Amino acid sequence: MLTTSFASLVGRYRVIFFDAYGVLKNARGILNGVPELLSWILQQGKDVYVITNDASRSPAQMAAAYAHPQHGILIPESKIISSGLLAKDFLRAKLRSGRVAYLGKPASAFYIESAGVTPIHIGACQVGEEVDAIALLDDEGFDWFRDLNITLNMIRRVSAPVIVANPDLVYPVNDREVGLAVGSLAAMLERIVGKAFIRFGKPDTMMFSHAFACAHENVPHLRRSDVLMVGDTLETDIIGANTFGLDTALVLSGNTRAEQAALLIQAKGILPTFLCESVFT
Amino acid sequence: MLTTSFASLVGRYRVIFFDAYGVLKNARGILNGVPELLSWILQQGKDVYVITNDASRSPAQMAAAYAHPQHGILIPESKIISSGLLAKDFLRAKLRSGRVAYLGKPASAFYIESAGVTPIHIGACQVGEEVDAIALLDDEGFDWFRDLNITLNMIRRVSAPVIVANPDLVYPVNDREVGLAVGSLAAMLERIVGKAFIRFGKPDTMMFSHAFACAHENVPHLRRSDVLMVGDTLETDIIGANTFGLDTALVLSGNTRAEQAALLIQAKGILPTFLCESVFT
Amino acid sequence: MLTTSFASLVGRYRVIFFDAYGVLKNARGILNGVPELLSWILQQGKDVYVITNDASRSPAQMAAAYAHPQHGILIPESKIISSGLLAKDFLRAKLRSGRVAYLGKPASAFYIESAGVTPIHIGACQVGEEVDAIALLDDEGFDWFRDLNITLNMIRRVSAPVIVANPDLVYPVNDREVGLAVGSLAAMLERIVGKAFIRFGKPDTMMFSHAFACAHENVPHLRRSDVLMVGDTLETDIIGANTFGLDTALVLSGNTRAEQAALLIQAKGILPTFLCESVFT
Amino acid sequence: MLTTSFASLVGRYRVIFFDAYGVLKNARGILNGVPELLSWILQQGKDVYVITNDASRSPAQMAAAYAHPQHGILIPESKIISSGLLAKDFLRAKLRSGRVAYLGKPASAFYIESAGVTPIHIGACQVGEEVDAIALLDDEGFDWFRDLNITLNMIRRVSAPVIVANPDLVYPVNDREVGLAVGSLAAMLERIVGKAFIRFGKPDTMMFSHAFACAHENVPHLRRSDVLMVGDTLETDIIGANTFGLDTALVLSGNTRAEQAALLIQAKGILPTFLCESVFT
Repeated sequence: MLTTSFASLVGRYRVIFFDAYGVLKNARGILNGVPELLSWILQQGKDVYVITNDASRSPAQMAAAYAHPQHGILIPESKIISSGLLAKDFLRAKLRSGRVAYLGKPASAFYIESAGVTPIHIGACQVGEEVDAIALLDDEGFDWFRDLNITLNMIRRVSAPVIVANPDLVYPVNDREVGLAVGSLAAMLERIVGKAFIRFGKPDTMMFSHAFACAHENVPHLRRSDVLMVGDTLETDIIGANTFGLDTALVLSGNTRAEQAALLIQAKGILPTFLCESVFT
Repeated sequence: MLTTSFASLVGRYRVIFFDAYGVLKNARGILNGVPELLSWILQQGKDVYVITNDASRSPAQMAAAYAHPQHGILIPESKIISSGLLAKDFLRAKLRSGRVAYLGKPASAFYIESAGVTPIHIGACQVGEEVDAIALLDDEGFDWFRDLNITLNMIRRVSAPVIVANPDLVYPVNDREVGLAVGSLAAMLERIVGKAFIRFGKPDTMMFSHAFACAHENVPHLRRSDVLMVGDTLETDIIGANTFGLDTALVLSGNTRAEQAALLIQAKGILPTFLCESVFT
Repeated sequence: MLTTSFASLVGRYRVIFFDAYGVLKNARGILNGVPELLSWILQQGKDVYVITNDASRSPAQMAAAYAHPQHGILIPESKIISSGLLAKDFLRAKLRSGRVAYLGKPASAFYIESAGVTPIHIGACQVGEEVDAIALLDDEGFDWFRDLNITLNMIRRVSAPVIVANPDLVYPVNDREVGLAVGSLAAMLERIVGKAFIRFGKPDTMMFSHAFACAHENVPHLRRSDVLMVGDTLETDIIGANTFGLDTALVLSGNTRAEQAALLIQAKGILPTFLCESVFT
Repeated sequence: MLTTSFASLVGRYRVIFFDAYGVLKNARGILNGVPELLSWILQQGKDVYVITNDASRSPAQMAAAYAHPQHGILIPESKIISSGLLAKDFLRAKLRSGRVAYLGKPASAFYIESAGVTPIHIGACQVGEEVDAIALLDDEGFDWFRDLNITLNMIRRVSAPVIVANPDLVYPVNDREVGLAVGSLAAMLERIVGKAFIRFGKPDTMMFSHAFACAHENVPHLRRSDVLMVGDTLETDIIGANTFGLDTALVLSGNTRAEQAALLIQAKGILPTFLCESVFT
């Protein structure tokens, strides 16, 4: 499979959806050159969205990270579609009030608070605690041994829904290492208790339909074939966007290493429309 | 959990989404009284949609089945959202032309033809056949031993996408028996080859977002809380619609037996908003 | 990983365990040269056993297939340890009498009859049939569509144990094709009903402990390090024998293709002690 | 299903195999009355073995716990068959020398040291550390966040075998709570890396064949029907011993609660020969 220059693809689409980790940022922050790249894309009259399985901080905090030193905010928070946002919509629609126990850093609680319900960190819960939902938001911000055991026992006892706002199993830490993401912890607990957790995030198509609906409001005659999804992960970004009917570009700057790409695409049967070394090529 | 009269719920919503099998029909056809029920709901100014994991026949054929002896077609084909329809959209968007090998009855081929691509029954394929996609549409219309073995070997050899237009594992045949649905056959093949198939149908939320977008065109200010999803299966209808943020009514006339309902809801942790004996109560 | 000559390994061990399919035979029968090879090994004073996930025919029928044109039977049936044999032992120990419904060719029924219980082909059963166990023995000898649906409904209704006498997912048909083995059908049914089936065959170590106990009777001071297991499949032959503590040789004449071997060993983390092109090298 | 008095079963068997947790002990130690019960069984000329998925301490430490205040050691360490023991045999047979990184308390390292190889706690490893095997032994004795992330990255990089010396998902902490066992952590890591770990412990039959071989040395004509396995867990004790052909007694003093027992037996299709409230009835 030949690689394509990403820059050469931009002109063919009206709207670009970007994954964040492994595409525009890594564990150390936004990649050098990203604000300039985004400015260049926006100058060509394209709309840009970020579609990210992340519930560790608010969209406003995410938006600030992409700001350009001169031009300021490039991607407004309304164009950052995070899995946390879908979780928030769910809590607002289905709970309306009540208390939600959560696993994650304090910044994760934004998604619970802004749904109008009360967040309680699982580290502050007892096993018999009465809650209206349990939310698994992030892999940091709690004591794994103590708090995963409390979470397991709470889930066994209550019949409240359990929501997972990031189904990713791992995330790239650096070129050589990955970290266990909250999706792995959730899958472990779900298997033990035999209950069905409610997941928000790619590859479920809801992230794409939500972003497409936003984009469609700005661009009335937008068709799916006018949108390109750019991601680094076959099992989330690419299969999800393929299923939703978007064209897809796999970049080799994150979870998928250049030397494995052809093999993984063949082995898994997940076919991106394009293959690009990175967004800078 | 107390059961509610379905009739008493209708007034609270603007739009009703119905699952088909186990709710409005069974293996012998549309249930007695369904045309009259639908007429009554429509007379109250409600919009009605059918949301069904079914790719075994065209929406027009499905619509005809719900016709009223006097009033004719009650649910136009545009309001029947089948998993086959999403598969068709995918094939049109992602293939545009080519040949698609399929498992299913000849009527299933409608979804391939109407995407502008050429259907070929897998029974007419050789293992080395060159195709652009493989579509698993229905559990009938082929020789399981011969054609599942051909399908397995085709999938191993080609890197074309494999799509599954009905992820259900079983369907109710009568009060005592179930049948193996194509989703079970697909899961068996997927596990063997280790590839990721592309699934269309509940519980993925795309069926609900598609139907909601249609409903929203007719009812401009429609909110998700204005829609009730009525289904007989916790793992598809209820969890999918819950995830999308709709209210849900579980009816006990299909896959979920009355005597097990409370136990299953507790064991699986999938909570419908309401529990109704059937749509006739 | 370097390949070793199989002939050069024979002298290092006291007992050789062979897998059958992909090692000594294929879908067309015993490989050319196998009787001569076995004669040569036996002449060196080695004991030879066949350890095979196969319940499609009796050990006597299997033994006849390895006969040498001049020397007659080389591997007596007492040295052919099949998964069917373990299933027979189970039925004898746990049922003692009664009726067992089975999926498979008529020759499979040997293992049920010789356990002293009555075999009934599933094609002759009604859904409500009262049986004492259900045995999934072979992928041939029945109508998949009709009989898998009957089997599913029988398993849902009865609380009798379900035994699977061959957990293999596929078997090699020829150099290019595989066939769906009964283990795939069993896994599909097991997932649907949520019950735990009882499996006999590699990679469970019972096949190896049974064979080792037989070998130990003949060779009193036999240690596990005196035995070499020769197989073509990482997930059954190699991991099972590794777990039991035997040395293992992976041959590239069956399920594992030469060009993939190094990659699969690395990807799956299943490490054979030796790699041989075939038993003829 | 009627419950039977355990005392009335003892006379029918020559050898009794006991699971430990939930049968003879709980998180606070050996149950009151167990030494007296064991004395009484031994006085009747029965042989007693403990078959336990436990690699957290040595058999000598386990044996000491069952000692009688007057009669001293009742079950010698040679009759305590732990999953750690099988792991030790594997390491000795397959590695012979080298370094094994392990997760668990320091006492777990006994099984590695006594195999003649060098234990290194994973907390003392770097991601790039060269080791000959990785052993997951216990859920305590390490920092979950830090050390599970290191373990994941080590497993991704090395092709050394990964062994799991306790496949249990949870263990009972008290009447109301369970704890995450190392088997859950192992299953989470295995799923992420896609490699096959080597598991020791029930339900694999190797624990039973090992114990039966020991028992057979003492009692030359012992048959499987002379042995009763007593356990509290359907998915490990009961299905494993059933598969090996032993009679089984499920006690309701541990993982299986009395009020759920009939339902779980039916739902899972795992049938114990007997049901007993506890070993004291």
